[in-house]
Amino acid sequence: MPTGEGTHERARLPTTVPFPTTVPFVKDLHAAARALDAEDPLATYRERFVIADPDLVYFDGNSLGRLPVTTGQRLVEAVSREWGGELIRGWDRWIGLAREAGDVLATGVLGVDPGEVVLSDSTSVNLYKLAAAALDARPGRSVIVTDDDNFPTDRYVLAGLAETRGLTLRVVETDINQGLDPAHLRAALDPDVALVCLSHLAYRSGALVDLVAVTEAAHEVGALTLWDLCHSAGSVPVPLREAGADLAVGCTYKYLNAGPGAPAFLYVRADLQSRLRQPIWGWFGQRDQFAMGTDYDPVESVERFVVGTPPVLGGYAVLEGASITAAAGIGAIAAKGAALTSYAISLFDAWLAAEGFELATPREPERRGAHVTLYHPEAWRICQAMKAAGVVPDFRTPDRLRMGFAPLYTRFVDVHEGFARLREVMRSGGWTRFPAERGRVT
Amino acid sequence: MPTGEGTHERARLPTTVPFPTTVPFVKDLHAAARALDAEDPLATYRERFVIADPDLVYFDGNSLGRLPVTTGQRLVEAVSREWGGELIRGWDRWIGLAREAGDVLATGVLGVDPGEVVLSDSTSVNLYKLAAAALDARPGRSVIVTDDDNFPTDRYVLAGLAETRGLTLRVVETDINQGLDPAHLRAALDPDVALVCLSHLAYRSGALVDLVAVTEAAHEVGALTLWDLCHSAGSVPVPLREAGADLAVGCTYKYLNAGPGAPAFLYVRADLQSRLRQPIWGWFGQRDQFAMGTDYDPVESVERFVVGTPPVLGGYAVLEGASITAAAGIGAIAAKGAALTSYAISLFDAWLAAEGFELATPREPERRGAHVTLYHPEAWRICQAMKAAGVVPDFRTPDRLRMGFAPLYTRFVDVHEGFARLREVMRSGGWTRFPAERGRVT
Repeated sequence: MPTGEGTHERARLPTTVPFPTTVPFVKDLHAAARALDAEDPLATYRERFVIADPDLVYFDGNSLGRLPVTTGQRLVEAVSREWGGELIRGWDRWIGLAREAGDVLATGVLGVDPGEVVLSDSTSVNLYKLAAAALDARPGRSVIVTDDDNFPTDRYVLAGLAETRGLTLRVVETDINQGLDPAHLRAALDPDVALVCLSHLAYRSGALVDLVAVTEAAHEVGALTLWDLCHSAGSVPVPLREAGADLAVGCTYKYLNAGPGAPAFLYVRADLQSRLRQPIWGWFGQRDQFAMGTDYDPVESVERFVVGTPPVLGGYAVLEGASITAAAGIGAIAAKGAALTSYAISLFDAWLAAEGFELATPREPERRGAHVTLYHPEAWRICQAMKAAGVVPDFRTPDRLRMGFAPLYTRFVDVHEGFARLREVMRSGGWTRFPAERGRVT
Repeated sequence: MPTGEGTHERARLPTTVPFPTTVPFVKDLHAAARALDAEDPLATYRERFVIADPDLVYFDGNSLGRLPVTTGQRLVEAVSREWGGELIRGWDRWIGLAREAGDVLATGVLGVDPGEVVLSDSTSVNLYKLAAAALDARPGRSVIVTDDDNFPTDRYVLAGLAETRGLTLRVVETDINQGLDPAHLRAALDPDVALVCLSHLAYRSGALVDLVAVTEAAHEVGALTLWDLCHSAGSVPVPLREAGADLAVGCTYKYLNAGPGAPAFLYVRADLQSRLRQPIWGWFGQRDQFAMGTDYDPVESVERFVVGTPPVLGGYAVLEGASITAAAGIGAIAAKGAALTSYAISLFDAWLAAEGFELATPREPERRGAHVTLYHPEAWRICQAMKAAGVVPDFRTPDRLRMGFAPLYTRFVDVHEGFARLREVMRSGGWTRFPAERGRVT
């Protein structure tokens, strides 16, 4: 495998983030990676994750995070001892799990108060519930605002609500590489707007939206805000509290490492909880649930936004995954994410710009999350070639490679190795052996 | 522990079900149980489940089914080898899991065609989606029909839809012990009715509704039917096909043994699938999902009713649990369920009627599922005393003990032992030591 040893390009390492680097400039990019790993304050967190194949370079922790060692143990215990042994009596513990994990997310990941976050359903279902609740709270207003680079399910859910209610979905244009310009967003706001629903971190480019500025602008016209945190929860600080943001949703299987299809979370600012009502009146939101009362009478708390029986195994997985993130600290994680992406951009500049790639992610570390996206007209074929070379990125339509560097377990030498293999794929022409027609992608 | 050995009451064992008993009448109820177990064609299925505490009498498989041995193994593999080892590449397999498990449910449990059932969300969310889809398909009609003994979440979900849409929720009266009289249901039907939504098997009494007759009556007035199968799927045959039923939902953590909070399923009759549209437009229902297209364009198949990323561990658990039910055969399961409940009613007649209990379940085996409910004004306290005596029933408001005999692993001697302990709790006055005030129940 090519490792890039002996190359002499100049690294451009980040200076604007508090990652404690003493190696801002070096001539040897591999030496830089080793030095950065040596002083990484999160280095030991890698040991908390299962690394089944040390030769695999995994750049997809932003799609599916790795398995924490303790999660495997916890799930075996939940299955064998709790389900198998305690049977129905396990619910004495399980009944509080969605809130317990929610509190870890609230205090350890999202910087809000206990009682403002709960696990529930999928991100899409939570988007639906909270968007509908917000629209009900702004009667007479006819517009939902989103942007054209929002994640597909967000756009679909909002389009469905708009069609059903006869509202307008106002879609703000973005730059596919640089994300949303707050000025464009402001221009879309007026007193007809009921709800502004955006992704905090763009799934494709990795560009961050200024959550505080957008929330302020939305509030100025009396609209509510609903944030999709799928790509930011666990990778960067989420300034919900500073912004006074109203509502948010997010998944747990990316940077929070809770496993495939783990339950999503939702956030509702404390003072809004009893004033909003979501449309799916389920028994897990009911006061004195097991009284089996005739009429729906939801609790005042965040469980008001929960619907049916929560997935227990998924709940434990979130508890474990979120606890690791909380222990590491989101500040340290974001600093390492900025350093990893900055290092990756140095490699891009040194090796890949000459191979027909373009950077499709903001260059400023404070304007992006923990992934970097590269444009190439043959991205689909190159993606297949990378996988054959033992590197796992994401292909993203129409012509992008997305490479995520989950800070808890990705080393700088991993970034070096993955990019070196990509360079080799390009220089050798190996990518031309793969079909151009797009197959199924995840 | 009392075992009832040496008692001489006359057993009234079922003669109307095809359970292959050669012991229709005996004087010794314990001998009858042993004899029935000896000729139980499903006896070996008990070995497929984890029995952690052989002294515990578990009458709550209708709330949370036991852990299948293979499920524990399958989940360890899914966590360690697939999530831990394959990482994102696991989705090559996982993407089809909701449909794969749905097909096992369709063909092996529900008697409908492959492609008519899929795993998705919770029962409550599925009720919402399918009820909304049905209402949209019957514009101009103003009434939803349900009954006053339907499960709480069903009534809440329907009430929410009725309120949002300005519809009337017409609630048919039932007998709390005997269930729904089809004549009362017929009297509630007229051409204003858009949707009839009922539980196939009443959660409290265990009474079965005549699904075929009700569906026929609903169709006569042009209404659609939505069946909640939570207590019937895996315990009795569900005549969806014979009835030409339109829609159904159900959970998998009861008789299907898929574990706490496992994903629910939904059924949409094949010819209706492309004609209905559910309200939560999520990306897992999208055609060519990973093309990330701008507009929602749902598939024609049953995946049209799926919303977000499905829970993988829960999917595997359903696949394992449903496969065991399918292997045993729903006919054999129902026959044993009828025999078990008939045997339990014999014990009730012999021992418990004299202790102030009343039977709150239909006596005719063909009119009930696999659980038996007993009324007693002190049911709450007695329930606590039973648990202290190593028997796990359900308390159900306001004053009932619900005892489920999941046919795959419940033996006749277990029914005998549990009822014998209950009799001892009553005769000894042991129940009076427990507080009258109701605590939290599951």
